[in-house]
Amino acid sequence: MVPTPGARLAELGIELPPPPRPAGTYSPVVVHGDRAWVSGQIVLRGGTPLHPGLVDRDVSVAQAQEAARGAALQALSALAAELGSVDRIRRVLRVAVYVASVPTFGQQHVVGNGATDLLVSVFGEAGRPARVAMGVAALPLNAPVEVEVTVAVA
Amino acid sequence: MVPTPGARLAELGIELPPPPRPAGTYSPVVVHGDRAWVSGQIVLRGGTPLHPGLVDRDVSVAQAQEAARGAALQALSALAAELGSVDRIRRVLRVAVYVASVPTFGQQHVVGNGATDLLVSVFGEAGRPARVAMGVAALPLNAPVEVEVTVAVA
Amino acid sequence: MVPTPGARLAELGIELPPPPRPAGTYSPVVVHGDRAWVSGQIVLRGGTPLHPGLVDRDVSVAQAQEAARGAALQALSALAAELGSVDRIRRVLRVAVYVASVPTFGQQHVVGNGATDLLVSVFGEAGRPARVAMGVAALPLNAPVEVEVTVAVA
Repeated sequence: MVPTPGARLAELGIELPPPPRPAGTYSPVVVHGDRAWVSGQIVLRGGTPLHPGLVDRDVSVAQAQEAARGAALQALSALAAELGSVDRIRRVLRVAVYVASVPTFGQQHVVGNGATDLLVSVFGEAGRPARVAMGVAALPLNAPVEVEVTVAVA
Repeated sequence: MVPTPGARLAELGIELPPPPRPAGTYSPVVVHGDRAWVSGQIVLRGGTPLHPGLVDRDVSVAQAQEAARGAALQALSALAAELGSVDRIRRVLRVAVYVASVPTFGQQHVVGNGATDLLVSVFGEAGRPARVAMGVAALPLNAPVEVEVTVAVA
Repeated sequence: MVPTPGARLAELGIELPPPPRPAGTYSPVVVHGDRAWVSGQIVLRGGTPLHPGLVDRDVSVAQAQEAARGAALQALSALAAELGSVDRIRRVLRVAVYVASVPTFGQQHVVGNGATDLLVSVFGEAGRPARVAMGVAALPLNAPVEVEVTVAVA
Protein backbone atom coordinates (compact mmCIF):
# COMPACT_ATOMS: atom_id res chain seq x y z
CA MET A 1 0.00 0.00 0.00
CA VAL A 2 1.37 3.37 -1.00
CA PRO A 3 0.51 5.91 1.70
CA THR A 4 -1.56 8.91 0.65
CA PRO A 5 0.25 12.26 0.59
CA GLY A 6 -1.63 13.22 3.76
CA ALA A 7 -0.51 10.02 5.49
CA ARG A 8 3.02 10.55 4.24
CA LEU A 9 3.12 14.07 5.70
CA ALA A 10 2.05 12.58 9.05
CA GLU A 11 4.70 9.81 8.80
CA LEU A 12 7.33 12.48 8.17
CA GLY A 13 6.09 14.47 11.15
CA ILE A 14 5.34 17.47 8.94
CA GLU A 15 2.52 19.80 9.89
CA LEU A 16 1.53 22.18 7.12
CA PRO A 17 1.89 25.89 7.92
CA PRO A 18 -1.22 28.10 7.85
CA PRO A 19 -2.39 28.77 4.30
CA PRO A 20 -0.85 31.94 2.85
CA ARG A 21 -2.97 35.06 2.57
CA PRO A 22 -2.69 37.05 -0.64
CA ALA A 23 -0.84 40.40 -0.46
CA GLY A 24 -2.60 41.92 -3.47
CA THR A 25 -5.16 41.26 -6.18
CA TYR A 26 -4.46 37.59 -6.74
CA SER A 27 -5.66 34.22 -5.52
CA PRO A 28 -3.45 31.85 -3.53
CA VAL A 29 -4.67 29.07 -5.84
CA VAL A 30 -6.65 28.96 -9.09
CA VAL A 31 -8.25 25.64 -10.02
CA HIS A 32 -9.50 25.13 -13.56
CA GLY A 33 -10.20 21.78 -15.18
CA ASP A 34 -7.80 19.26 -13.69
CA ARG A 35 -5.08 21.84 -12.98
CA ALA A 36 -4.24 24.08 -10.08
CA TRP A 37 -1.90 27.05 -10.24
CA VAL A 38 -0.42 28.20 -6.93
CA SER A 39 0.79 31.79 -6.61
CA GLY A 40 4.48 32.35 -5.92
CA GLN A 41 5.29 31.61 -2.27
CA ILE A 42 7.77 33.34 -0.01
CA VAL A 43 8.22 32.42 3.66
CA LEU A 44 7.47 35.13 6.21
CA ARG A 45 7.91 35.08 9.98
CA GLY A 46 5.86 37.84 11.60
CA GLY A 47 5.71 39.80 8.35
CA THR A 48 9.43 39.58 7.64
CA PRO A 49 11.06 37.08 5.28
CA LEU A 50 12.87 34.12 6.74
CA HIS A 51 16.55 34.83 5.88
CA PRO A 52 16.09 38.12 3.95
CA GLY A 53 18.54 39.30 1.32
CA LEU A 54 20.60 37.96 -1.56
CA VAL A 55 21.81 34.39 -1.55
CA ASP A 56 25.60 33.94 -1.37
CA ARG A 57 25.95 37.43 0.16
CA ASP A 58 23.40 37.71 3.00
CA VAL A 59 21.99 34.19 2.97
CA SER A 60 23.73 30.80 2.77
CA VAL A 61 22.75 28.04 0.38
CA ALA A 62 21.50 25.97 3.35
CA GLN A 63 19.34 28.87 4.54
CA ALA A 64 18.01 29.38 1.03
CA GLN A 65 17.16 25.67 0.81
CA GLU A 66 15.26 26.01 4.10
CA ALA A 67 13.31 28.92 2.61
CA ALA A 68 12.62 26.92 -0.57
CA ARG A 69 11.35 23.96 1.47
CA GLY A 70 9.13 26.27 3.55
CA ALA A 71 7.73 27.85 0.39
CA ALA A 72 6.90 24.41 -1.04
CA LEU A 73 5.10 23.54 2.22
CA GLN A 74 3.11 26.78 1.95
CA ALA A 75 2.13 25.84 -1.59
CA LEU A 76 0.84 22.49 -0.26
CA SER A 77 -1.03 24.32 2.49
CA ALA A 78 -2.62 26.66 -0.07
CA LEU A 79 -3.64 23.65 -2.17
CA ALA A 80 -5.04 21.79 0.85
CA ALA A 81 -7.12 24.85 1.79
CA GLU A 82 -8.52 25.14 -1.72
CA LEU A 83 -8.98 21.44 -2.54
CA GLY A 84 -9.92 20.16 0.92
CA SER A 85 -6.91 17.85 1.10
CA VAL A 86 -3.43 17.32 -0.33
CA ASP A 87 -4.72 13.88 -1.32
CA ARG A 88 -6.44 15.46 -4.32
CA ILE A 89 -3.02 16.38 -5.80
CA ARG A 90 -2.26 13.80 -8.51
CA ARG A 91 0.97 15.09 -10.02
CA VAL A 92 3.32 18.01 -9.45
CA LEU A 93 3.75 19.29 -12.99
CA ARG A 94 6.04 22.29 -12.78
CA VAL A 95 8.05 24.02 -10.07
CA ALA A 96 9.80 27.33 -10.66
CA VAL A 97 12.42 28.39 -8.12
CA TYR A 98 13.37 32.07 -8.16
CA VAL A 99 16.49 32.77 -6.09
CA ALA A 100 17.54 36.35 -5.23
CA SER A 101 21.16 36.17 -6.40
CA VAL A 102 24.33 38.14 -6.71
CA PRO A 103 25.62 37.91 -10.31
CA THR A 104 28.40 35.48 -9.35
CA PHE A 105 26.12 32.90 -7.74
CA GLY A 106 25.47 29.77 -9.77
CA GLN A 107 23.89 27.23 -7.40
CA GLN A 108 20.21 28.05 -7.91
CA HIS A 109 19.53 24.42 -8.83
CA VAL A 110 20.95 23.33 -5.47
CA VAL A 111 18.66 25.80 -3.70
CA GLY A 112 15.77 24.42 -5.74
CA ASN A 113 16.30 20.96 -4.29
CA GLY A 114 15.07 22.36 -0.98
CA ALA A 115 11.62 22.61 -2.57
CA THR A 116 11.59 19.53 -4.77
CA ASP A 117 13.25 17.13 -2.28
CA LEU A 118 10.26 17.86 -0.02
CA LEU A 119 7.75 17.27 -2.81
CA VAL A 120 9.35 13.94 -3.77
CA SER A 121 9.43 12.85 -0.12
CA VAL A 122 5.68 13.50 0.15
CA PHE A 123 4.38 12.41 -3.29
CA GLY A 124 7.08 9.98 -4.47
CA GLU A 125 7.69 10.06 -8.21
CA ALA A 126 4.41 11.97 -8.70
CA GLY A 127 6.12 14.83 -6.85
CA ARG A 128 9.11 15.00 -9.22
CA PRO A 129 8.26 17.97 -11.47
CA ALA A 130 9.65 19.67 -14.50
CA ARG A 131 11.68 22.44 -12.89
CA VAL A 132 13.21 25.77 -13.72
CA ALA A 133 15.64 27.53 -11.36
CA MET A 134 17.11 30.97 -11.88
CA GLY A 135 18.75 33.84 -10.08
CA VAL A 136 16.64 36.98 -9.94
CA ALA A 137 17.66 40.51 -8.95
CA ALA A 138 15.31 40.80 -5.96
CA LEU A 139 12.07 39.39 -4.61
CA PRO A 140 9.04 40.83 -2.80
CA LEU A 141 9.93 42.06 0.72
CA ASN A 142 13.56 41.06 -0.03
CA ALA A 143 12.79 37.38 0.36
CA PRO A 144 15.67 35.12 -0.71
CA VAL A 145 13.54 32.54 -2.53
CA GLU A 146 10.13 32.37 -4.21
CA VAL A 147 8.62 29.08 -5.33
CA GLU A 148 5.81 28.61 -7.86
CA VAL A 149 4.01 25.28 -8.14
CA THR A 150 1.55 23.92 -10.73
CA VAL A 151 -0.18 20.59 -10.16
CA ALA A 152 -2.72 18.21 -11.68
CA VAL A 153 -5.68 17.52 -9.39
CA ALA A 154 -8.27 14.74 -9.08
CA MET B 1 -27.08 40.86 -14.78
CA VAL B 2 -23.31 40.68 -14.68
CA PRO B 3 -21.91 42.79 -17.53
CA THR B 4 -19.71 41.01 -20.06
CA PRO B 5 -15.99 41.89 -19.98
CA GLY B 6 -16.48 43.92 -23.16
CA ALA B 7 -19.37 45.85 -21.59
CA ARG B 8 -17.35 46.34 -18.44
CA LEU B 9 -14.44 47.81 -20.41
CA ALA B 10 -16.90 50.27 -21.98
CA GLU B 11 -18.40 51.12 -18.55
CA LEU B 12 -14.91 51.85 -17.26
CA GLY B 13 -14.19 54.02 -20.29
CA ILE B 14 -11.27 51.82 -21.29
CA GLU B 15 -10.37 51.50 -24.95
CA LEU B 16 -7.97 48.67 -25.67
CA PRO B 17 -4.64 49.67 -27.23
CA PRO B 18 -3.74 48.29 -30.68
CA PRO B 19 -2.78 44.62 -30.52
CA PRO B 20 0.98 44.14 -30.01
CA ARG B 21 3.11 43.06 -32.96
CA PRO B 22 5.71 40.39 -32.29
CA ALA B 23 9.36 41.48 -32.26
CA GLY B 24 10.78 38.08 -33.14
CA THR B 25 9.85 34.47 -33.87
CA TYR B 26 6.90 34.18 -31.55
CA SER B 27 3.14 34.59 -31.59
CA PRO B 28 1.35 37.26 -29.57
CA VAL B 29 -1.12 34.56 -28.50
CA VAL B 30 -1.20 30.77 -28.80
CA VAL B 31 -4.59 29.10 -28.35
CA HIS B 32 -4.74 25.36 -27.75
CA GLY B 33 -7.67 23.48 -26.28
CA ASP B 34 -9.41 25.79 -23.85
CA ARG B 35 -6.26 27.74 -22.98
CA ALA B 36 -4.56 30.79 -24.39
CA TRP B 37 -1.00 31.81 -23.64
CA VAL B 38 -0.13 35.47 -24.23
CA SER B 39 3.49 36.43 -24.86
CA GLY B 40 5.17 38.74 -22.36
CA GLN B 41 3.98 42.33 -22.83
CA ILE B 42 5.96 45.54 -22.43
CA VAL B 43 4.48 48.96 -23.12
CA LEU B 44 6.11 51.00 -25.87
CA ARG B 45 5.40 54.55 -26.98
CA GLY B 46 6.81 55.18 -30.44
CA GLY B 47 9.25 52.27 -30.11
CA THR B 48 10.56 53.32 -26.69
CA PRO B 49 9.38 51.85 -23.39
CA LEU B 50 7.02 53.85 -21.23
CA HIS B 51 9.17 54.78 -18.19
CA PRO B 52 12.42 52.98 -19.16
CA GLY B 53 14.93 51.77 -16.61
CA LEU B 54 15.09 50.08 -13.25
CA VAL B 55 12.28 50.51 -10.76
CA ASP B 56 13.19 52.34 -7.54
CA ARG B 57 16.15 53.99 -9.32
CA ASP B 58 14.87 55.40 -12.65
CA VAL B 59 11.19 54.60 -12.31
CA SER B 60 8.77 55.09 -9.40
CA VAL B 61 6.43 52.43 -8.11
CA ALA B 62 3.47 54.43 -9.43
CA GLN B 63 5.06 54.62 -12.88
CA ALA B 64 5.81 50.91 -12.80
CA GLN B 65 2.19 50.20 -11.87
CA GLU B 66 1.09 52.28 -14.85
CA ALA B 67 3.37 50.18 -17.08
CA ALA B 68 2.00 46.96 -15.56
CA ARG B 69 -1.59 48.11 -16.16
CA GLY B 70 -0.74 49.04 -19.76
CA ALA B 71 0.88 45.64 -20.31
CA ALA B 72 -2.23 43.88 -19.00
CA LEU B 73 -4.37 45.94 -21.39
CA GLN B 74 -2.09 44.94 -24.26
CA ALA B 75 -2.54 41.30 -23.27
CA LEU B 76 -6.31 41.78 -23.45
CA SER B 77 -5.93 43.46 -26.83
CA ALA B 78 -3.83 40.54 -28.11
CA LEU B 79 -6.46 38.09 -26.85
CA ALA B 80 -9.31 40.09 -28.39
CA ALA B 81 -7.49 40.12 -31.75
CA GLU B 82 -6.95 36.35 -31.63
CA LEU B 83 -10.30 35.29 -30.13
CA GLY B 84 -12.55 37.92 -31.72
CA SER B 85 -13.61 39.34 -28.35
CA VAL B 86 -12.53 39.60 -24.74
CA ASP B 87 -15.90 38.02 -23.96
CA ARG B 88 -14.44 34.63 -24.85
CA ILE B 89 -12.06 34.87 -21.86
CA ARG B 90 -13.52 32.71 -19.09
CA ARG B 91 -10.85 32.86 -16.39
CA VAL B 92 -7.49 34.54 -15.92
CA LEU B 93 -5.40 31.61 -14.70
CA ARG B 94 -1.89 32.94 -14.16
CA VAL B 95 -0.20 36.33 -14.31
CA ALA B 96 3.56 36.71 -14.04
CA VAL B 97 4.91 40.20 -13.35
CA TYR B 98 8.59 40.74 -14.09
CA VAL B 99 9.89 44.00 -12.65
CA ALA B 100 13.33 45.37 -13.62
CA SER B 101 14.72 45.94 -10.14
CA VAL B 102 17.72 47.16 -8.23
CA PRO B 103 18.76 44.52 -5.66
CA THR B 104 17.34 46.54 -2.76
CA PHE B 105 13.83 46.88 -4.18
CA GLY B 106 11.21 44.64 -2.58
CA GLN B 107 7.82 45.95 -3.77
CA GLN B 108 7.36 43.87 -6.92
CA HIS B 109 4.02 42.62 -5.58
CA VAL B 110 2.80 46.22 -5.30
CA VAL B 111 3.83 46.85 -8.91
CA GLY B 112 1.99 43.67 -9.87
CA ASN B 113 -1.28 45.09 -8.57
CA GLY B 114 -1.17 47.53 -11.48
CA ALA B 115 -1.83 44.57 -13.78
CA THR B 116 -4.15 42.48 -11.63
CA ASP B 117 -6.29 45.36 -10.27
CA LEU B 118 -7.17 46.06 -13.90
CA LEU B 119 -8.01 42.42 -14.60
CA VAL B 120 -10.25 42.17 -11.53
CA SER B 121 -12.00 45.42 -12.44
CA VAL B 122 -12.82 43.99 -15.89
CA PHE B 123 -13.52 40.31 -15.13
CA GLY B 124 -14.49 40.38 -11.45
CA GLU B 125 -13.39 37.31 -9.50
CA ALA B 126 -12.73 35.47 -12.81
CA GLY B 127 -9.93 37.99 -13.32
CA ARG B 128 -8.19 37.23 -10.02
CA PRO B 129 -5.30 34.95 -11.05
CA ALA B 130 -2.61 32.94 -9.43
CA ARG B 131 0.29 35.39 -9.57
CA VAL B 132 4.03 35.45 -9.39
CA ALA B 133 5.99 38.71 -9.06
CA MET B 134 9.74 39.05 -9.09
CA GLY B 135 12.56 41.48 -9.65
CA VAL B 136 14.61 40.78 -12.76
CA ALA B 137 17.97 42.25 -13.80
CA ALA B 138 16.74 43.88 -17.02
CA LEU B 139 14.00 43.58 -19.62
CA PRO B 140 13.83 43.88 -23.42
CA LEU B 141 14.49 47.47 -24.57
CA ASN B 142 15.05 48.39 -20.90
CA ALA B 143 11.35 48.27 -20.15
CA PRO B 144 10.56 48.52 -16.44
CA VAL B 145 7.85 45.85 -16.37
CA GLU B 146 6.84 42.81 -18.43
CA VAL B 147 3.55 41.00 -17.85
CA GLU B 148 2.69 37.46 -18.94
CA VAL B 149 -0.93 36.28 -18.91
CA THR B 150 -2.47 32.81 -19.33
CA VAL B 151 -6.25 32.42 -19.57
CA ALA B 152 -8.98 29.83 -20.06
CA VAL B 153 -11.17 30.52 -23.08
CA ALA B 154 -14.69 29.51 -24.18
CA MET C 1 3.44 16.92 -48.18
CA VAL C 2 4.66 18.69 -45.08
CA PRO C 3 7.71 16.87 -43.70
CA THR C 4 7.44 15.55 -40.15
CA PRO C 5 9.55 17.32 -37.52
CA GLY C 6 11.91 14.33 -37.53
CA ALA C 7 12.29 14.51 -41.30
CA ARG C 8 12.76 18.25 -41.09
CA LEU C 9 15.59 17.85 -38.56
CA ALA C 10 17.27 15.43 -40.99
CA GLU C 11 16.75 17.85 -43.92
CA LEU C 12 18.39 20.61 -41.88
CA GLY C 13 21.29 18.29 -41.01
CA ILE C 14 20.54 18.63 -37.30
CA GLU C 15 21.38 15.76 -34.98
CA LEU C 16 19.82 16.10 -31.55
CA PRO C 17 22.27 16.23 -28.62
CA PRO C 18 22.10 13.52 -25.95
CA PRO C 19 19.07 13.97 -23.69
CA PRO C 20 19.86 16.09 -20.62
CA ARG C 21 20.30 14.39 -17.27
CA PRO C 22 18.66 16.06 -14.28
CA ALA C 23 20.97 17.78 -11.77
CA GLY C 24 18.58 17.49 -8.83
CA THR C 25 15.14 16.29 -7.79
CA TYR C 26 13.29 17.02 -10.99
CA SER C 27 12.34 15.30 -14.24
CA PRO C 28 13.67 16.40 -17.61
CA VAL C 29 10.10 16.16 -18.92
CA VAL C 30 6.68 15.72 -17.30
CA VAL C 31 3.85 14.52 -19.55
CA HIS C 32 0.28 14.86 -18.32
CA GLY C 33 -2.80 14.75 -20.53
CA ASP C 34 -1.84 16.24 -23.88
CA ARG C 35 0.86 18.51 -22.46
CA ALA C 36 4.55 18.14 -21.78
CA TRP C 37 6.59 20.44 -19.60
CA VAL C 38 10.34 20.44 -20.19
CA SER C 39 12.65 21.53 -17.38
CA GLY C 40 14.80 24.61 -17.95
CA GLN C 41 17.73 23.80 -20.24
CA ILE C 42 21.26 25.15 -20.12
CA VAL C 43 24.00 23.98 -22.49
CA LEU C 44 27.03 22.34 -20.93
CA ARG C 45 30.25 21.16 -22.56
CA GLY C 46 32.08 18.72 -20.29
CA GLY C 47 30.24 20.01 -17.21
CA THR C 48 30.91 23.69 -17.93
CA PRO C 49 28.43 26.06 -19.59
CA LEU C 50 28.94 26.99 -23.20
CA HIS C 51 29.89 30.71 -23.03
CA PRO C 52 29.64 31.24 -19.24
CA GLY C 53 28.88 34.61 -17.68
CA LEU C 54 26.68 37.62 -18.19
CA VAL C 55 25.52 38.60 -21.65
CA ASP C 56 26.82 41.93 -22.94
CA ARG C 57 29.77 41.74 -20.51
CA ASP C 58 31.29 38.25 -20.82
CA VAL C 59 29.18 36.86 -23.63
CA SER C 60 28.12 38.38 -26.97
CA VAL C 61 24.57 38.40 -28.28
CA ALA C 62 25.62 35.94 -31.03
CA GLN C 63 27.12 33.58 -28.43
CA ALA C 64 23.99 33.86 -26.31
CA GLN C 65 21.85 33.05 -29.34
CA GLU C 66 23.99 29.96 -29.93
CA ALA C 67 23.40 28.91 -26.32
CA ALA C 68 19.65 29.55 -26.70
CA ARG C 69 19.53 27.44 -29.86
CA GLY C 70 21.45 24.65 -28.14
CA ALA C 71 19.08 24.75 -25.16
CA ALA C 72 16.08 24.46 -27.50
CA LEU C 73 17.71 21.44 -29.17
CA GLN C 74 18.23 19.87 -25.74
CA ALA C 75 14.56 20.43 -24.97
CA LEU C 76 13.68 18.58 -28.20
CA SER C 77 16.08 15.80 -27.25
CA ALA C 78 14.47 15.50 -23.81
CA LEU C 79 11.03 15.35 -25.43
CA ALA C 80 12.16 12.75 -27.98
CA ALA C 81 13.57 10.59 -25.18
CA GLU C 82 10.32 10.80 -23.21
CA LEU C 83 7.82 10.58 -26.08
CA GLY C 84 9.73 8.24 -28.40
CA SER C 85 9.92 10.81 -31.19
CA VAL C 86 9.76 14.55 -31.85
CA ASP C 87 6.94 13.65 -34.25
CA ARG C 88 4.58 13.42 -31.28
CA ILE C 89 5.01 17.16 -30.63
CA ARG C 90 1.91 18.89 -32.01
CA ARG C 91 2.42 22.51 -30.96
CA VAL C 92 5.03 24.51 -29.10
CA LEU C 93 2.86 26.43 -26.65
CA ARG C 94 5.23 28.54 -24.56
CA VAL C 95 8.93 29.29 -24.53
CA ALA C 96 10.58 31.24 -21.72
CA VAL C 97 14.07 32.59 -22.35
CA TYR C 98 16.03 33.60 -19.27
CA VAL C 99 19.16 35.60 -20.13
CA ALA C 100 21.85 36.33 -17.51
CA SER C 101 22.11 40.08 -18.00
CA VAL C 102 23.87 43.17 -16.81
CA PRO C 103 21.29 45.83 -15.87
CA THR C 104 21.97 47.87 -19.01
CA PHE C 105 21.32 45.03 -21.47
CA GLY C 106 18.01 45.17 -23.31
CA GLN C 107 18.25 42.65 -26.16
CA GLN C 108 16.88 39.56 -24.43
CA HIS C 109 14.25 39.20 -27.16
CA VAL C 110 17.02 39.04 -29.78
CA VAL C 111 18.76 36.31 -27.78
CA GLY C 112 15.42 34.49 -27.56
CA ASN C 113 15.24 34.23 -31.35
CA GLY C 114 18.13 31.78 -31.13
CA ALA C 115 15.71 29.32 -29.53
CA THR C 116 12.51 30.11 -31.40
CA ASP C 117 14.06 30.48 -34.89
CA LEU C 118 15.17 26.86 -34.48
CA LEU C 119 11.72 25.73 -33.35
CA VAL C 120 10.02 27.45 -36.29
CA SER C 121 12.54 25.96 -38.73
CA VAL C 122 11.70 22.46 -37.44
CA PHE C 123 7.94 22.69 -36.77
CA GLY C 124 6.85 25.54 -39.06
CA GLU C 125 4.05 27.66 -37.63
CA ALA C 126 3.33 24.95 -35.02
CA GLY C 127 6.72 25.85 -33.58
CA ARG C 128 5.94 29.55 -33.15
CA PRO C 129 5.14 29.84 -29.42
CA ALA C 130 3.94 32.43 -27.01
CA ARG C 131 7.22 33.70 -25.62
CA VAL C 132 8.58 35.55 -22.66
CA ALA C 133 12.17 36.84 -22.55
CA MET C 134 13.84 38.52 -19.60
CA GLY C 135 17.18 39.37 -18.09
CA VAL C 136 17.95 37.50 -14.90
CA ALA C 137 20.72 38.13 -12.36
CA ALA C 138 22.44 34.77 -12.76
CA LEU C 139 21.76 31.21 -13.85
CA PRO C 140 22.81 27.76 -12.62
CA LEU C 141 26.54 27.13 -13.11
CA ASN C 142 26.80 30.70 -14.49
CA ALA C 143 25.18 29.71 -17.76
CA PRO C 144 24.31 32.68 -19.98
CA VAL C 145 20.90 31.42 -21.11
CA GLU C 146 18.23 29.03 -19.84
CA VAL C 147 15.29 27.99 -22.00
CA GLU C 148 12.00 26.50 -20.80
CA VAL C 149 9.64 24.84 -23.28
CA THR C 150 6.02 23.66 -22.93
CA VAL C 151 4.36 21.72 -25.75
CA ALA C 152 1.14 19.97 -26.72
CA VAL C 153 1.64 16.31 -27.60
CA ALA C 154 -0.28 13.71 -29.61
